Amino acid sequence: MAAHDKVTITDIARRAGVSVPTVSRVVNGRSDVSPQTRARVEELLREHGYRKRPATASATRAALLDLVFNDLDSPWAVEIIRGVEEVAHAAGVGTVVSAIHGRSGDAREWMRNLRARASDGVILVTSALEPTLHEQLRILGVPLVVVDPTGSPAADTPTIGAANWSGGLAATEHLLSLGHRRIALIAGPPRLLCSRARYDGYRAALEAAGLSVDETLVVPGDFHPESGFAGCTALLDLPDPPTALFAASDQMALGAIEALRRRGLRVPEDMSVVGFDDLPEVRWSSPPLTTVRQPLADMGKLAARTVLALTHGARPDTPRVELGTELVVRASTAPPA
Amino acid sequence: MAAHDKVTITDIARRAGVSVPTVSRVVNGRSDVSPQTRARVEELLREHGYRKRPATASATRAALLDLVFNDLDSPWAVEIIRGVEEVAHAAGVGTVVSAIHGRSGDAREWMRNLRARASDGVILVTSALEPTLHEQLRILGVPLVVVDPTGSPAADTPTIGAANWSGGLAATEHLLSLGHRRIALIAGPPRLLCSRARYDGYRAALEAAGLSVDETLVVPGDFHPESGFAGCTALLDLPDPPTALFAASDQMALGAIEALRRRGLRVPEDMSVVGFDDLPEVRWSSPPLTTVRQPLADMGKLAARTVLALTHGARPDTPRVELGTELVVRASTAPPA
Repeated sequence: MAAHDKVTITDIARRAGVSVPTVSRVVNGRSDVSPQTRARVEELLREHGYRKRPATASATRAALLDLVFNDLDSPWAVEIIRGVEEVAHAAGVGTVVSAIHGRSGDAREWMRNLRARASDGVILVTSALEPTLHEQLRILGVPLVVVDPTGSPAADTPTIGAANWSGGLAATEHLLSLGHRRIALIAGPPRLLCSRARYDGYRAALEAAGLSVDETLVVPGDFHPESGFAGCTALLDLPDPPTALFAASDQMALGAIEALRRRGLRVPEDMSVVGFDDLPEVRWSSPPLTTVRQPLADMGKLAARTVLALTHGARPDTPRVELGTELVVRASTAPPA
Repeated sequence: MAAHDKVTITDIARRAGVSVPTVSRVVNGRSDVSPQTRARVEELLREHGYRKRPATASATRAALLDLVFNDLDSPWAVEIIRGVEEVAHAAGVGTVVSAIHGRSGDAREWMRNLRARASDGVILVTSALEPTLHEQLRILGVPLVVVDPTGSPAADTPTIGAANWSGGLAATEHLLSLGHRRIALIAGPPRLLCSRARYDGYRAALEAAGLSVDETLVVPGDFHPESGFAGCTALLDLPDPPTALFAASDQMALGAIEALRRRGLRVPEDMSVVGFDDLPEVRWSSPPLTTVRQPLADMGKLAARTVLALTHGARPDTPRVELGTELVVRASTAPPA
């Protein structure tokens, strides 16, 4: 932005017809402003592309970046933390890990803390941050990178994902190549882009093999093991059950394997199972799981590199990056009986 | 400490026969000091109980605490992070997560970063921090709490562990109550106190039942799944294999279950298996694992509360706390065939 474009708090105050301290309170996210005034001031801040000047604090204390999860109960959270921490640590930057639990109160409190610790950048992991908080980050001038976006992030927010469509394709092609024709899908939540991409990859592989999707073989899931258990149980109750299934997450694959064990069925002899994620634990599931590897730690590393570059004023080459996925064949898949 | 006890950098410099800036360099962990001078100055700092004054920065920026792991590849790291983050977040404190990989270079760099970001407290998780770094924390006046100590921490460092002995006892008593008499142990590394406590609990349960430890049924492990696989394989090769086994970690139990599956043996019909930890993933192992629950998130919460209290000048009531463990019975244990 050229110097003559720079809009100051004084300009905004004049246009909004309020005092400079009032605008300052909005910029700093304080609560002692009426909702109407806040809305008017925020609208003007947005319209004029106001950016808070970089905090002078950054010259006097070590850099920090904030890594924000919706919840910390995901088994892959630690993989992403590991990748981010490795890059940040090497750069002398501390990684502040938070969970905001999808609750707006927690998110607001996190935003207050972020401001108080003058964090230099934010990496958001599959969290749907409210648009107003996105806007606050923009006003604060704190760079944001989103990992594995679940929705459609703003066009100017760099996002890092995995090649979900290719992964769904590879999982299904593997089962086809073993000779399976009745291949079920335990899908992820349809509101998430990654679920839709995995489903489309599954369909594309079937269609390339001259098959079409049998909708009775597609059951819904939410990525958690319970839904894999329930989905597999429903598939086994069909008059003509599948001989193989692709679960759109490793955790659902583990739930499916347990459903099969309860029925006295063996994996892969009675049913082949492919997962998605390659969590460390599935190397030691019983049997070890054939799955699609998402490079979670690498996604964390790239997110950290991108946000650190943004804090130094660089722009990413492409706003959206997908890292490759890879089929890992272990012991849970075999030709049909 | 009374005012007349306070030792200053000037006092130390005079006694060491070096300049004030040299002492300052040692206190601030800089590298441009000869090893001999550093050793002499550190000795005097220790001897006189020198504490750096609290950083004035803490008045102007939000509080931080450092949560330090040896490695972030442990499946239970995220459980501890979750507990620490919950308490810290509620207190408006940021949780900086680091891994030092047991390498002294990484640990030194972490210490430099800790100093630069003026962290208010440190929680160390099963990491053997070098004694000199312990000493540096003391000099910096940064409170330290150790979670699940693997060795013998300094007497004045608060430590938070789990009731390992009681857990080993409960696991073994459960197998005895099912009617097992030949009960194997896949032990943890003997250099870790927690391994020794779990072993002693196992022995105590056997002895209380009028049995004694059969050393051929005790095999070594390192808490990782590979060692559980190898240990179980060795046990199955015995002329008279056990009918049940207690693995001193869930990951070793998963490795053991896979070794049994490879031999065509079923759990629990052919062998009962008990783990230790209750990682989230073992609820969905196949079969779901009977195990001893360590309250990892609660340990994280208590560590965070303790270190925050220390930063406000409180002293913990007891320097060493053990949180209770609890047997969780699932589907991997049954009476012997």
